[in-house]
Amino acid sequence: MNKPIDELKNRLQEVDDLEKAGAVLNWDQAVFMPTGGAVGRGRQTATLERLAHEKFTDPVVGELLDAIDPVADAEASLLKVTRRDYDRAVKVPSEFVARQVAHNSAKYQVWEQSRRANNFAAVQSYLEKTLELSREYVDFFPGYEHPADPLIDISDEGMTAATVRRLFGELRKALVPLVAQIAEREPSDDSCLRENFPKARQLAFGEMIIRKYGYDFDRGRQDKTAHPFMIRFGSGDCRITTRVQENYLAEALFSTLHEAGHAMYEQGVSSEYEGTPLGQGATSGIHESQSRLWENQVGRSFGFWKHYYPKLQKEYPSQLGGVGLDTFYRAINKVQPSLIRTDADEVTYNLHVMIRFELELAMLEGSLSVGDLPGAWRDRYKETLGVTVPDDRDGVLQDVHWYYSNIGGMFQCYTLGNIMAAQIYAAAETNNPTLSDQIEQGEFSRLHTWLKENIYQHGRTISAERLLQQCCGGPISIEPLMSYLNNKFGPLYNI
Amino acid sequence: MNKPIDELKNRLQEVDDLEKAGAVLNWDQAVFMPTGGAVGRGRQTATLERLAHEKFTDPVVGELLDAIDPVADAEASLLKVTRRDYDRAVKVPSEFVARQVAHNSAKYQVWEQSRRANNFAAVQSYLEKTLELSREYVDFFPGYEHPADPLIDISDEGMTAATVRRLFGELRKALVPLVAQIAEREPSDDSCLRENFPKARQLAFGEMIIRKYGYDFDRGRQDKTAHPFMIRFGSGDCRITTRVQENYLAEALFSTLHEAGHAMYEQGVSSEYEGTPLGQGATSGIHESQSRLWENQVGRSFGFWKHYYPKLQKEYPSQLGGVGLDTFYRAINKVQPSLIRTDADEVTYNLHVMIRFELELAMLEGSLSVGDLPGAWRDRYKETLGVTVPDDRDGVLQDVHWYYSNIGGMFQCYTLGNIMAAQIYAAAETNNPTLSDQIEQGEFSRLHTWLKENIYQHGRTISAERLLQQCCGGPISIEPLMSYLNNKFGPLYNI
Repeated sequence: MNKPIDELKNRLQEVDDLEKAGAVLNWDQAVFMPTGGAVGRGRQTATLERLAHEKFTDPVVGELLDAIDPVADAEASLLKVTRRDYDRAVKVPSEFVARQVAHNSAKYQVWEQSRRANNFAAVQSYLEKTLELSREYVDFFPGYEHPADPLIDISDEGMTAATVRRLFGELRKALVPLVAQIAEREPSDDSCLRENFPKARQLAFGEMIIRKYGYDFDRGRQDKTAHPFMIRFGSGDCRITTRVQENYLAEALFSTLHEAGHAMYEQGVSSEYEGTPLGQGATSGIHESQSRLWENQVGRSFGFWKHYYPKLQKEYPSQLGGVGLDTFYRAINKVQPSLIRTDADEVTYNLHVMIRFELELAMLEGSLSVGDLPGAWRDRYKETLGVTVPDDRDGVLQDVHWYYSNIGGMFQCYTLGNIMAAQIYAAAETNNPTLSDQIEQGEFSRLHTWLKENIYQHGRTISAERLLQQCCGGPISIEPLMSYLNNKFGPLYNI
Repeated sequence: MNKPIDELKNRLQEVDDLEKAGAVLNWDQAVFMPTGGAVGRGRQTATLERLAHEKFTDPVVGELLDAIDPVADAEASLLKVTRRDYDRAVKVPSEFVARQVAHNSAKYQVWEQSRRANNFAAVQSYLEKTLELSREYVDFFPGYEHPADPLIDISDEGMTAATVRRLFGELRKALVPLVAQIAEREPSDDSCLRENFPKARQLAFGEMIIRKYGYDFDRGRQDKTAHPFMIRFGSGDCRITTRVQENYLAEALFSTLHEAGHAMYEQGVSSEYEGTPLGQGATSGIHESQSRLWENQVGRSFGFWKHYYPKLQKEYPSQLGGVGLDTFYRAINKVQPSLIRTDADEVTYNLHVMIRFELELAMLEGSLSVGDLPGAWRDRYKETLGVTVPDDRDGVLQDVHWYYSNIGGMFQCYTLGNIMAAQIYAAAETNNPTLSDQIEQGEFSRLHTWLKENIYQHGRTISAERLLQQCCGGPISIEPLMSYLNNKFGPLYNI
């Protein structure tokens, strides 16, 4: 007979094996699968997902959680987090999970076509069904304050619509004047990024940098996909993907730095949590803080490029040999209200997120119908960013999130991540006053070690809130982000 | 309530999904996985394998098989084949399967190192354990005539040690004089294959040919691995791998043609059998007949190269521009007793297989200990092929089979495949008298269609024996292989 704690761990390991097998199938689907594999693959991943849910919600897991008297700290965390996940999972019937998986899989295929054809009408009924399913999910968790709360809780445990709304309101108030001031200045010229840059060198250059960052290629790899992502199969195998444009240097480079930030987090989670719900990053927001920190606070800083720009010029002498560091730095930090979230600069990016977040809430509240969504999207882009959305392809169809998952809880993590990245980076600077000098030398090991110790290693044992408290000495706050943006973009735009 | 036949199919589909998910994980492990992923991956595939076995051997499956009254032919086949698999699977306890999977996984790692280090002693105790496990497996099937029979039955259903011994005895008697006669002649010169051939073009050339063969890249792909293989994730996704040597043109080329033969078989299985035990090739021997037919009967024929050699010369003008078709044809068909099975020519290849088959039987019979295996290997190579084995790396450690699976039943399929390839090709020629003209034109569609209709589409609905009977009008026989070899190599070596 196993001890109950060992029996629990065995069962959690089995669930984890099924989930990670599903992740490998998803990775293959995005990276290498031939088109003919789609039907079989959809079924295989659905089976793995269903079995993982069945195994995790087995009543025996609940009985074990009740029976175990935690004797060590690590066990207490394991029981607490598993109990939360379990209580959430058992509220959702397997029958609902199966319906949702099937719907999302069908919807995703339709979205791909409808996006290509710029035809929102083709996917509208699927999205209406998604709204129904999202509400049905919410109803499994009575007692919420806002219907988005149970959905936000999936990825950003501890956050609510009210908290996010308050934070986003403050941030918007601070951002809008900055955007307006920049709009009055001479726009930056980023044409130097739009020469012809052979792809293999772009990839090699990005990989050289993330190796220096500390991404371990013996426990990961990078491949090319339509949409970049990071995926964890275990602490020994955390992969990233990127996409490369021959005529735009910033695409592959910053996506690589971004995804490497996610992957270094996962590679740094203590291996003692492997195979349990603790063995992954804390929340989506904290995760995004780690990717954005390496992409932006480090990777778009002037000091960083003081070190790396001469090396980049050597790779592309005819394209960049005559372009000065200052011009290049302005190009990669060009601020301009635009259509596409993932291409947005650090200043306007969060406005894209807020638009999506508010549209999600409005749909869940019932004040916006799915049929009116494309129009509402265009109105908000005009109003918030002053941008005219020419078509739905680059409007309401641009992001995959609503088309592979829920309406609600899908976007707040990006701006929460930006806010926390600035807080955490400020704390890292306080702890390590010569950090900017190290970055100018292309030296990242002290920063990486500090992040491992303070963030990565803990996995899900510490909540996002407590992690931030421990690391930065306070709760989430927009001040560090705003002072980072003001200090960086003020001088850049003579404000 | 589902009808029992639908309930059975649902359960079989779930088992198939788990097995195919395991296949994707194995493929990734061989092709792309970073070294750090090994531990987690071993556990994940073991979990999938265990769950598939548990689900398939669920007593409800047996009850459904008892309860269903087949109404259609396809159902009768499904019930018959599933019943056979089920009866075999339930005899093997899950506990044994788990022990065996764990042992094989550990053994494989040790083999890789011990092969690299040319150190048989390091893996000997693992192989001794394998012999024990293979005997333990055999004991689950009392009533066999020879202990190898239950092991042979796993991959070549219907075959027994006695039948294989008889066939191999006849073949050996016919082959030995041919090998001796060739040995008296001037050896062919294959130095034209050993120039420098840039790898990308080698791969592209092989892929161009298999596309013409009929391999569907929309339902498959080719990657590079240490050991070439074919793997099926479903009828929509049957992949192959190859390996390329810059200094040896025959390696990638013929491995690609070989694996494509396997994959075209799997791509051609009727999709109505998808997700059931019927949805794959009949036996390992039949499978090998299909790979060898496209590799050898087609791909090493003179007519084939009359068409393709000028194209190959265009790819490598400096290496092959001055080499005549006749010289090239002799080079790719050079007969020479050698050390390595996978590199062996068509004449001596089967002697390699017979050595392994007899060693397996001797170990299972108890007349040969694992400790004496390396010596017995060297003795038989000297005696049978006249070759001195210089070390265990290129001796008893060369093939992966014993090191990832059983002792017993591992090798007979290769020679059974060669025998049946010749029978089936002769039948194809009878049916299609201008076949050789078509091949000289680089036209394969009639042959491909005939194989689809007569072999591929049936999956496992028809036994190997009946398939051969239907296709060739008789039971397995070595005559067609011997007359193929005599007709081909007689003129080549002036015999």
